[in-house]
Amino acid sequence: MATTLRDVAERAGVSRSAVSRTFTPGASVSDKTRTRVEEAARELGYHPNALASSLTTGRTKLIGLVLNNFHNPLFLEVFDRFTKGLQRVGLRPLMVNLTDETDPEHSVKMLKQYSVDGVVLASSTLPLSFAEAFRDADIPIVHSFGKYSVTPKVHVVGIDNEKCGQLAALSLIKRGYRHVGFLGGPQKATSTQDRMTGFLNEIAKHPEMTVSHSFAEDYTFRAGRDEMLHLLEGEMREAYFCGDDVLSIGALSALQERGLKVPDEVGIIGPNDMELAGWQNINLTTISQPISDIVDASVDLMTALLDDPHKTPESRLFECELVERGTLRAHHNS
Amino acid sequence: MATTLRDVAERAGVSRSAVSRTFTPGASVSDKTRTRVEEAARELGYHPNALASSLTTGRTKLIGLVLNNFHNPLFLEVFDRFTKGLQRVGLRPLMVNLTDETDPEHSVKMLKQYSVDGVVLASSTLPLSFAEAFRDADIPIVHSFGKYSVTPKVHVVGIDNEKCGQLAALSLIKRGYRHVGFLGGPQKATSTQDRMTGFLNEIAKHPEMTVSHSFAEDYTFRAGRDEMLHLLEGEMREAYFCGDDVLSIGALSALQERGLKVPDEVGIIGPNDMELAGWQNINLTTISQPISDIVDASVDLMTALLDDPHKTPESRLFECELVERGTLRAHHNS
Repeated sequence: MATTLRDVAERAGVSRSAVSRTFTPGASVSDKTRTRVEEAARELGYHPNALASSLTTGRTKLIGLVLNNFHNPLFLEVFDRFTKGLQRVGLRPLMVNLTDETDPEHSVKMLKQYSVDGVVLASSTLPLSFAEAFRDADIPIVHSFGKYSVTPKVHVVGIDNEKCGQLAALSLIKRGYRHVGFLGGPQKATSTQDRMTGFLNEIAKHPEMTVSHSFAEDYTFRAGRDEMLHLLEGEMREAYFCGDDVLSIGALSALQERGLKVPDEVGIIGPNDMELAGWQNINLTTISQPISDIVDASVDLMTALLDDPHKTPESRLFECELVERGTLRAHHNS
Repeated sequence: MATTLRDVAERAGVSRSAVSRTFTPGASVSDKTRTRVEEAARELGYHPNALASSLTTGRTKLIGLVLNNFHNPLFLEVFDRFTKGLQRVGLRPLMVNLTDETDPEHSVKMLKQYSVDGVVLASSTLPLSFAEAFRDADIPIVHSFGKYSVTPKVHVVGIDNEKCGQLAALSLIKRGYRHVGFLGGPQKATSTQDRMTGFLNEIAKHPEMTVSHSFAEDYTFRAGRDEMLHLLEGEMREAYFCGDDVLSIGALSALQERGLKVPDEVGIIGPNDMELAGWQNINLTTISQPISDIVDASVDLMTALLDDPHKTPESRLFECELVERGTLRAHHNS
């Protein structure tokens, strides 16, 4: 007869919950209890595992962590925090690479085959239709870095990208820049759309300002550099708000190549504040996106959704703020 | 009675293998066959999934992808290629974050609970004892970026790090550098040990050369920068071979801060050739580590191991080569 969790609990003289916690990655249990449970399990030949447990619960504890940009160093921090965060609550991060995937139905089919309990989309470039396809297939879904809405259709965690664009505009205005540009990410990305809206709306309140906009092909160094090289063939702006940090770094590289000094001749600001932005030889003025808070809230929301899959969708938003470094000139006191 | 794969094959008029391939993520099947199989499956209400399949096969198709450095942008490429490579052969990458983990037994326990079919350790800093612990627990294991050995104890894929160190030494000698230094990664990392051995052995053959060595705390920008700032307080060398690209970029940042010109006053070379090394505003001379080949070979080896878990351990090594950019001076023709 197979050894059960109850047998182990009896032998160890602890509760069944204590046995369960001992074998749940990341769950809290005292060293003393752990030792007793492990001894009892060894004596009885008890080998708990996720597969066995999923047979009784119908749950795999696998969470599909869906990503589609592996050329943006921001996502290194996102992976780090998500894997730790999911491990901490006893969930298992199954990494899904959707680079070049355009069909939401195909993604849903793939994740269903993977037997995940839920899906975290960690992307601001996958269209809303992806998140909705998972919802329609009754797969608990959290869209991290997704589009804010007052009445969200799926659970969304991120920043208010319009506010982020507004903050960028105000930062440029305050520093006396008059002729500015938006160098966005992909035109279809909701993050780029919203950052542009917030930026242009704020600029429009200031009749002395002029503004242009254009888009890079994706959120990568190469795309930011190419777009800035292209812009440098036309009329220059005094400062650019870029779609994100990696585009900003690409833009800085183009400016450097053309011998333009930053911030003396051109200013650059771009959101996220990923680790590289603070490297002293990059030293990018940026707008922080609190990755750690966003990931923690996403994991919390996923845990809640697994308990109550029909929870009303909510948007959890975090504040972004200016991080001053070396790519915008100092305040203008005219 | 439950619908089986055979029922679907009969209804669709295709082989059972074609049905299986249709429902295996990444497996090859013609559009026509896929359409027929999906129609038949829909009509019969057939829903294959990995959990159901693991019940019959005892296999989960989960491969633990174990990483312990999320501050080195090299690993963004490693993730990208591993997730795609595993997906392509119908395996599922379960990401495991072992940052700060020091106990091999604890890791084995965790991966067992995760019900993985095999484990890929993608790290050059986890000691050999980790890979051996998995082997001893009868978990198929491939150590990517691991230490080369003529008689390996586990399956290893990577480069010959001693050769890499030798290549760095020869590159510096050829350019006329005489007084050089090794700025390594963590002293315990086999990649740092082997790169140093190859480097020092080659330098020792040239009596006109002098060499120093030191170690950074880990393979990160911060550690490379801190160690170079420390070195700059003492006697300067003409050029440094750094443990890897991210350490090199940290070292470049320190040199820039102290007003030292690269390559005119100091040369820098560091292995890997990660994507960032080629960014024009970094432009690092480096030694390429063929990530794509290493990952493909690791996935091949894992597939073979799942079929034959007692396959004799082998080392698969790839050639590394010099990538000339802007951080070493030109050839010296004296």
